[in-house]
Amino acid sequence: MVQYNEAKNIVVKEASAFTTRITTLPLLKSLHRILAEDVFADSDLPCFINSSMDGFAIRYSERKNWEITDEIPAGHFHNVIMDIDKTVRIMTGGKLPEDADTVIPLEDVTEVANNITLREGLRLKKGQFVRHAGEDLLKNSLAVSKNTLLEARHIALLAMCGMAEVKVCTSLKAAVLTTGDELIDIHQFPSNDKVRASNLYTILSALKSLNVETVNLGILQDDKTQIKEAVQSALQSDIDILITTGGVSVGKYDFLKDVFNELGVEILFNKVNIKPGKPFVFGKFQDTKTVKYVFGLPGNPVSSYATFKILVEPFINAVYKQFEPPLIKAILQTDYKKSDKRLHFVRGLLSYEGNTFLVATQGQQSSNNLAGLAQSNCLFMAEEDSEIIKAGNEVSCIRI
Amino acid sequence: MVQYNEAKNIVVKEASAFTTRITTLPLLKSLHRILAEDVFADSDLPCFINSSMDGFAIRYSERKNWEITDEIPAGHFHNVIMDIDKTVRIMTGGKLPEDADTVIPLEDVTEVANNITLREGLRLKKGQFVRHAGEDLLKNSLAVSKNTLLEARHIALLAMCGMAEVKVCTSLKAAVLTTGDELIDIHQFPSNDKVRASNLYTILSALKSLNVETVNLGILQDDKTQIKEAVQSALQSDIDILITTGGVSVGKYDFLKDVFNELGVEILFNKVNIKPGKPFVFGKFQDTKTVKYVFGLPGNPVSSYATFKILVEPFINAVYKQFEPPLIKAILQTDYKKSDKRLHFVRGLLSYEGNTFLVATQGQQSSNNLAGLAQSNCLFMAEEDSEIIKAGNEVSCIRI
Repeated sequence: MVQYNEAKNIVVKEASAFTTRITTLPLLKSLHRILAEDVFADSDLPCFINSSMDGFAIRYSERKNWEITDEIPAGHFHNVIMDIDKTVRIMTGGKLPEDADTVIPLEDVTEVANNITLREGLRLKKGQFVRHAGEDLLKNSLAVSKNTLLEARHIALLAMCGMAEVKVCTSLKAAVLTTGDELIDIHQFPSNDKVRASNLYTILSALKSLNVETVNLGILQDDKTQIKEAVQSALQSDIDILITTGGVSVGKYDFLKDVFNELGVEILFNKVNIKPGKPFVFGKFQDTKTVKYVFGLPGNPVSSYATFKILVEPFINAVYKQFEPPLIKAILQTDYKKSDKRLHFVRGLLSYEGNTFLVATQGQQSSNNLAGLAQSNCLFMAEEDSEIIKAGNEVSCIRI
Repeated sequence: MVQYNEAKNIVVKEASAFTTRITTLPLLKSLHRILAEDVFADSDLPCFINSSMDGFAIRYSERKNWEITDEIPAGHFHNVIMDIDKTVRIMTGGKLPEDADTVIPLEDVTEVANNITLREGLRLKKGQFVRHAGEDLLKNSLAVSKNTLLEARHIALLAMCGMAEVKVCTSLKAAVLTTGDELIDIHQFPSNDKVRASNLYTILSALKSLNVETVNLGILQDDKTQIKEAVQSALQSDIDILITTGGVSVGKYDFLKDVFNELGVEILFNKVNIKPGKPFVFGKFQDTKTVKYVFGLPGNPVSSYATFKILVEPFINAVYKQFEPPLIKAILQTDYKKSDKRLHFVRGLLSYEGNTFLVATQGQQSSNNLAGLAQSNCLFMAEEDSEIIKAGNEVSCIRI
């Protein structure tokens, strides 16, 4: 049995060595994908000296009035000789004539016939309301770096750099299967001791929200032969990750660890000192060409989702070269007691009040309580050695 | 000119009165959509009394040993008469026989032939490791409420409630057009005073990240007739929102306000006391059957994205009945000076260190500095009346 930090280090180390492929997408399809190249500015930004206001371009002097001789609408630049007593009308973003160095905003002048006069009491500053070529970004300098998770604000800059297409990391591809004789499809009503196979839906959705492509391998009975065939076929397909739920504990019908072993999966750990989720298999399958990773999640609905968040998600983040979101420090609202030496991940409701995070435990912590999970928005950590965390103490939270 | 809070209240009030349609989706397609119905449990959760451990079911007494008479694998329940000295093997999640009330975990006994003995020093608690029917959620009680933004944890509970299909709000549909004679498509290299039309890409991406369906109406020249035709045609299509960028300021070629007026758009405000983004039109277009909303964003790339975040996003959140994310209180790292009476939304880099948020200004605050925007992750607010915010003071931040 490994401690949580050790387990997470193993997972992250494997992921960091894993290389994703690269694909080219039109810019508008690249939202929330991982940029796979450094992108450099192909021109100065801004491209040319321009006005930051609607107004009048002049050659700076201490004059107070000018004659309007011309107009340069944005997009229609033509050079104009700028005498000291002459001005040209210019729009926001419009390029300045070569000799102009200063802009007077529209609202700072009175305009009569073809003449403008600076309003009483105003003073010009040489160079005011002028943006210079390259002042935001010089040509050939780094605009957006490799491994950036692309948000609208990055797409803005990529567009300005002319990146009609961008190279992004290929999405990971994960297959999910769930095992158990008690499981029925969610379309069915559970009679006797049957249970709807919610895990499939939870894990497939959690993968999608991390931009992982998914394959649904459905429900398998607790039949070793059938499970072995399904796992073998998955390992021979083009997936990167196989996720199973159930069948990894010490029960008589828990076949998955044996199946993984028999199929040549190198098991890197199979038990973690955490609650929920002690039985958890992480393995690696290598053939001549590829590496695939196997995550054997516990069958309890809460345990499988919790371990996904705390051990599978860090793997995916590391493959995509994303920093983990920082742990949020929150003030616990009610005492939390524990009687074992495991690290607990406790379902909680995190709120932000004033400038402080608060966290309250959410209902029963039973590992099949999906109602409590749905109402939670975080898991907070209760350390291995603690027996009680008193209300008012600070705990570390992971958003879920 | 309206103050920001007033502008936002108008936007949110209109959105709150706007009704979305409803569509039915398979559960696996419902991630990040808005649930359009209250969902109730169609059975108790759990459905039946069951074991929370792999182990042995007994009728509680002060005995220390039992004879194993049977086994109930999960999914294969059959009732067993439970004498006080008899036990049945049971798996996690397995249904308990009618007379059983207590479970002893596998690891708490020694098993010899068909007999188990409680390990030295251990004491049983009546009812231990038993989960009762309905203890998580009773049949017919509320499982997931209407207007929930569906995350994996909600999908888990919906699956357990048998919701193979769910009703969700139809996505809003928004058309985006950008105006300006200086604009060229991003495929082209900007010569002379041309500028790539980044706004289209930014706003379309920002809409997608909020689950809004998008229509790209492209780049229009500063030609009133052409703009009027395009706006009219958009207002007659099946969109909910029209977003334009550029053409809403006081310049000679700013036609959009006139066009909106002439086409019967009721302008609810057209100038907000903020920076960036003072020129900003919010309007409402009603015909006999539908209401459509018009947002005229400024043309500067940073202004258009900033106003999208602070005025369009609150509209979309309110239509989808989502709470706004709370403002984050962060300690400013460097002085911020301002010389006007506008409310500033300043690009900043928010970080979380220890248990405190810090925010630093990001480069030049010029309203076309997309490089600074891409490196920022928040906008912090500098109030109308402040002239300087000293480093060390707390400011309110909106994540971008």
